[in-house]
Amino acid sequence: MNFEEIIQSVYYKIKAIEDRGSLASYIPELEKVDPDCFGVHISTIDNFNFGIGNYNDKFSIQSIAKVISLSLAYSKLGEKLWDRVGVEPSGTAFNSLVQLEVENGKPRNPFINAGALVVSDILISNLNSPKEDFLSFVNSLSSNSEICYSNRIATSEKNVGFRNVALCNFIKSFGNIENEPSDVLDFYYNLCSLEMNCKEVSEVFIFLANDGRTLVDNKQILSKSQSKRINALMQTCGFYDESGEFAFKVGLPGKSGVGGGIVAVHPKQYTIVVWSPKLNKKGNSYRGMRFLEEFTTKSELSIF
Amino acid sequence: MNFEEIIQSVYYKIKAIEDRGSLASYIPELEKVDPDCFGVHISTIDNFNFGIGNYNDKFSIQSIAKVISLSLAYSKLGEKLWDRVGVEPSGTAFNSLVQLEVENGKPRNPFINAGALVVSDILISNLNSPKEDFLSFVNSLSSNSEICYSNRIATSEKNVGFRNVALCNFIKSFGNIENEPSDVLDFYYNLCSLEMNCKEVSEVFIFLANDGRTLVDNKQILSKSQSKRINALMQTCGFYDESGEFAFKVGLPGKSGVGGGIVAVHPKQYTIVVWSPKLNKKGNSYRGMRFLEEFTTKSELSIF
Amino acid sequence: MNFEEIIQSVYYKIKAIEDRGSLASYIPELEKVDPDCFGVHISTIDNFNFGIGNYNDKFSIQSIAKVISLSLAYSKLGEKLWDRVGVEPSGTAFNSLVQLEVENGKPRNPFINAGALVVSDILISNLNSPKEDFLSFVNSLSSNSEICYSNRIATSEKNVGFRNVALCNFIKSFGNIENEPSDVLDFYYNLCSLEMNCKEVSEVFIFLANDGRTLVDNKQILSKSQSKRINALMQTCGFYDESGEFAFKVGLPGKSGVGGGIVAVHPKQYTIVVWSPKLNKKGNSYRGMRFLEEFTTKSELSIF
Amino acid sequence: MNFEEIIQSVYYKIKAIEDRGSLASYIPELEKVDPDCFGVHISTIDNFNFGIGNYNDKFSIQSIAKVISLSLAYSKLGEKLWDRVGVEPSGTAFNSLVQLEVENGKPRNPFINAGALVVSDILISNLNSPKEDFLSFVNSLSSNSEICYSNRIATSEKNVGFRNVALCNFIKSFGNIENEPSDVLDFYYNLCSLEMNCKEVSEVFIFLANDGRTLVDNKQILSKSQSKRINALMQTCGFYDESGEFAFKVGLPGKSGVGGGIVAVHPKQYTIVVWSPKLNKKGNSYRGMRFLEEFTTKSELSIF
Repeated sequence: MNFEEIIQSVYYKIKAIEDRGSLASYIPELEKVDPDCFGVHISTIDNFNFGIGNYNDKFSIQSIAKVISLSLAYSKLGEKLWDRVGVEPSGTAFNSLVQLEVENGKPRNPFINAGALVVSDILISNLNSPKEDFLSFVNSLSSNSEICYSNRIATSEKNVGFRNVALCNFIKSFGNIENEPSDVLDFYYNLCSLEMNCKEVSEVFIFLANDGRTLVDNKQILSKSQSKRINALMQTCGFYDESGEFAFKVGLPGKSGVGGGIVAVHPKQYTIVVWSPKLNKKGNSYRGMRFLEEFTTKSELSIF
Repeated sequence: MNFEEIIQSVYYKIKAIEDRGSLASYIPELEKVDPDCFGVHISTIDNFNFGIGNYNDKFSIQSIAKVISLSLAYSKLGEKLWDRVGVEPSGTAFNSLVQLEVENGKPRNPFINAGALVVSDILISNLNSPKEDFLSFVNSLSSNSEICYSNRIATSEKNVGFRNVALCNFIKSFGNIENEPSDVLDFYYNLCSLEMNCKEVSEVFIFLANDGRTLVDNKQILSKSQSKRINALMQTCGFYDESGEFAFKVGLPGKSGVGGGIVAVHPKQYTIVVWSPKLNKKGNSYRGMRFLEEFTTKSELSIF
Repeated sequence: MNFEEIIQSVYYKIKAIEDRGSLASYIPELEKVDPDCFGVHISTIDNFNFGIGNYNDKFSIQSIAKVISLSLAYSKLGEKLWDRVGVEPSGTAFNSLVQLEVENGKPRNPFINAGALVVSDILISNLNSPKEDFLSFVNSLSSNSEICYSNRIATSEKNVGFRNVALCNFIKSFGNIENEPSDVLDFYYNLCSLEMNCKEVSEVFIFLANDGRTLVDNKQILSKSQSKRINALMQTCGFYDESGEFAFKVGLPGKSGVGGGIVAVHPKQYTIVVWSPKLNKKGNSYRGMRFLEEFTTKSELSIF
Repeated sequence: MNFEEIIQSVYYKIKAIEDRGSLASYIPELEKVDPDCFGVHISTIDNFNFGIGNYNDKFSIQSIAKVISLSLAYSKLGEKLWDRVGVEPSGTAFNSLVQLEVENGKPRNPFINAGALVVSDILISNLNSPKEDFLSFVNSLSSNSEICYSNRIATSEKNVGFRNVALCNFIKSFGNIENEPSDVLDFYYNLCSLEMNCKEVSEVFIFLANDGRTLVDNKQILSKSQSKRINALMQTCGFYDESGEFAFKVGLPGKSGVGGGIVAVHPKQYTIVVWSPKLNKKGNSYRGMRFLEEFTTKSELSIF
């Protein structure tokens, strides 16, 4: 059975069962999305592409962007990056301050909010025009060049972002933020507001399945070893307090966002992206998790 | 370059650098081992075997045994097992009681001590002669039938095991231990006292590289899906608070023990075992970690 | 208005309102008590005594005994005692292990279970016949000599005491218990099983209102300064996570037990004891708390 | 021996011993104070006043102001106040975020920073001109009318106040701050910047020794019961994680500030204020703690 057949059969199976998730409520604008959207797209390193459902509709990628910003920061700083952010699963919720207090302001990993704020701070210090340069980087990863920030989403998140303001100032109080908290937060909200469709996300992430090289122009974004390490981090830390569950049930490195998107990477093979906005209790797309579990079971292709 | 060459070259390189670890001190008997021992053994699913250094010397496998007991319990209970123990990384030290208190006695995963105690409790409830039956199981996994418990080690650990007594009674107070704590602890100390050499460990674990089937008699110990899940758990939780680091640097599922052993599994390919008794600050073999990092870098064979 | 009138008027007022508490459920024997019992007794340092309701019925004093054991240990060790147990409120539940882990086995104060276990350990090391000698000490504090342990209660608590076994072994693992955990626990369960009536408790505690001297034979049990310090400790730590509330609403040093007893001490004036078995959510006698709040409001006699 | 003699003898004794404290370093301006200053002042409810040393020199009262703001908020809201802030000791450092996370944004008590921020928020919502009105309130409590904010100190604290920004936004994220965080913080920094001398502090606080009535014009600021409750709160929570120690060694309700001031209240008798800028490890004036311990020992006047 080939990918096209498997994806179709799993897609319709999951579409038919009740969607028990609920829309993200903490960012008002995210509640305005059509809750029934459901799209899937796969890109393989030998250039096979296939999408189904709403795979061409843009959605807010939210925390999925944290992998892209980490990749850019890693390419700029190399291993020095890990002096400022750890590589261990957190064992707590995505916006927890508890561990930061115990560990003196060094976030456990780059995918919890605290870690993504430190990575944002690093990019601000290392890019000439942070927002523009970051957007150029995203657009350079695939053939598509229409990926944009959403002002509407960034503003909506900013208006309710007291917890992130708290996190950023808390880390600053330990000396692990160099720039003004308000600048770091502005960059961070824009980062999370990126709007992409399933096809774009799978194309942008393909360099992580391809030992660090883009498909579009064969450019080495990260070294082979760095690329593997990003995948390892997604495996152990990509789903907040459901990371173990995702490794256990899906068996691929991946990253989710509260916009309902999930990207999974099968090294040396493919990237697959699912989008469905309603979230389970841990904050990950309900249908996305179900789809990927069935998909790796049926394809018998997990890394384990 | 083949496995033999890679292993030899990495072995001598690591042997030449200073061993900065120190012997486990909390179990008196473990301090009596020769600190300079250093052995490696690989077993592939197509029956290639190669060892170097002290790969034929028995050592105390300690927590490595937790993967074997989990496999047996999983084969007995199936998915019901996960009602009593979780699948998430802990984010804290191996013998922490904090998370248990917050999560009402359900250990975060089967590889922290709390989780291994619950798995031991399950085996006691499900085996006729727990200690004998478990030993038979271990011996049935490979062609070797001389694997034994060490009374000396079990007694040594029992004599200083106040923290484990605390853990077991604490979980019992939440109702997640069915048997007498003293019986559970006795079984647990025996389990951890198993003495094996690198060759035996790599042979015993080969079923996890082989989709759940033993090589010796092609017996299906776990289903393919269950076998993958054990590997995923080792990836996210196998090295206590250094699990992220191991995934990051080595990129294979694995499990360590305070006796200085580490086993790593490359699904569909091989198992590799390193033993060197001196431990780094997180309690994992110093040379073992270094060896495996070099080995996967050189072989370019990680799962990511 | 004198004490007799105030106590009578408050007693009947509280008796008339609904008792919203519920019986302690974690020790089976404690559930067998008549839930409607309600007794009060006051003893002043000028030898006025007055009781009402079930003030002559014996009840299980439980944690109230921790003040007596602390007093005896303090008289034996002096200020060295505080090397092994702290004097700060815990901010957590009475049987929490979390803080112990963070603070390396030194309990925050002598009134949480952990602290009382360390005090028990100290007494075992410093008394010839710990159980007998402790009972003699209790009986020597008042004219009454019929105070006894309850085997029935001690055994009942022991049978469900997994959490206390956990606590004691946990502290032992940090080196802050000298004796065998089973011996310490046996002493501790007996201590908590003491049966006394309101009159006896108020007479036993009167030395703490009298600068450390008993009324019955004017014996100096503790120095004036030590006696004040015990009162200060009851004020800040006597009611677990409701200590602030008790200081706030009642305004006297005091100690409660899950048997439904509460003793309060007004330094240089009196001791007052209330017993009513049904407990509020924080584990303190519902009517006892209500009675004492009204009593100090009406008498206008708090220390603040 | 009368107060004058006791204070003189204790003052010279403490002055003669080595001051082992060190200046508060986290607010730059506070480091500029003369570290050798040492003043004491007592005010009794029968109008006896006595000062020694630098009792007439202004210092930054810092957290001592939290008692005054709490008193004003309590007089405005009555018991409703406790819906938004608790009355229990925290068991953690003064600026901890951990407990807030566990308890959903309701600070444990009004004297940790989190609680004082909520009280500031309440005052902003309930005063017409918050800063002016609060200053008038302070000046109305004593005959002195020259108490002022220090712009210099408020600005200095604001410039390094990332932790407080974090705290305030964190509480806002739970919905327990009504106003803009920047307004709440501005009010809070001004509050803490009040400059007073020992004499002024003892006069301002005398209403808490006098059942809620000022001495200067016999005005009832708080009811008798409310005044007692503030004293009880100072007793259990006034010294952060050294509250138990202060109750234990000094035996009076009190409040300290990182400017090196400590006020203690003996209900129905007096207030006493010590100022010496060098702090012990828990952040309380080294000499202040030593002085008060000796003072209550010598005067034999503690509440216990």
